[in-house]
Amino acid sequence: MKILGIDPGTGICGFGVIEIETGKKAWMVTAGVVKTPPRTPLEDRLLDIYDGLREIVQECKPDEVAIEKLFFNTNITTGISVAQARGVCMLVAKQADLPIFEYTPLQVKQCLVGYGRAEKKQIQEMVRIHLGLKVAPKPDDAADALGVAITHSMMNRG
Amino acid sequence: MKILGIDPGTGICGFGVIEIETGKKAWMVTAGVVKTPPRTPLEDRLLDIYDGLREIVQECKPDEVAIEKLFFNTNITTGISVAQARGVCMLVAKQADLPIFEYTPLQVKQCLVGYGRAEKKQIQEMVRIHLGLKVAPKPDDAADALGVAITHSMMNRG
Repeated sequence: MKILGIDPGTGICGFGVIEIETGKKAWMVTAGVVKTPPRTPLEDRLLDIYDGLREIVQECKPDEVAIEKLFFNTNITTGISVAQARGVCMLVAKQADLPIFEYTPLQVKQCLVGYGRAEKKQIQEMVRIHLGLKVAPKPDDAADALGVAITHSMMNRG
Repeated sequence: MKILGIDPGTGICGFGVIEIETGKKAWMVTAGVVKTPPRTPLEDRLLDIYDGLREIVQECKPDEVAIEKLFFNTNITTGISVAQARGVCMLVAKQADLPIFEYTPLQVKQCLVGYGRAEKKQIQEMVRIHLGLKVAPKPDDAADALGVAITHSMMNRG
């Protein structure tokens, strides 16, 4: 089974696809970011994200999507901006008829590191180990997206 | 010239298309809402909004889009929810290559009623008069969307 993890954002939208087989370790299919040019109108960025994610979905054919849920301790302007991108990400998944699962940053931290106040570095290290990679994928948003995908795989294994 | 006004929302997304000709009064082409069933997953609602608005764009062929900007004095959960729908609305406009203009509720009130603390009823009455209608369109979200379209037409006449 393939899981597409998404870390939504308007400036940088992280994605990561992992594959899991019963009784085997998960491995990484791909990971990266849709980066939109700064100082461009929001609608241009949303279209880039839409097109970028659709391409990933068409190429990787994931079975399920795991997306980071918004957390409200951040700046409200950032929150609104991320929410607009997140709406587009969910639309892409829905248009491809993929089941969508949502996880908060806290759930991802607790699941990967076993500790809700884990630092970004710790998450990335756990992503690296979990997927048997030599180095954690860069940029951070790609690793974060993989982290959401791994969380989903761990919380849903029978 | 035809202007599509949008009042974004996940539960109810209002739209209204007006047509204007130099030296003439504006008139209404259509108005209504994309209403999504309560207690359905967000992604289903976003897809309904996407499909609904695309249909309006294809049928009415507007030249420009005016969309309500988010205002932050409301509940943050509502704000995030509206933002996700708003991202999808902007995507539809961008995919149709339509220029997008944004107006805050305050701008709409000031433009239509000349008073930033105008009540919803006053907005609707001004929409009705401006478009030469016997009765203001219902539900309110449709009238609000027309209000945004009218605001754009008034703020951009040469």
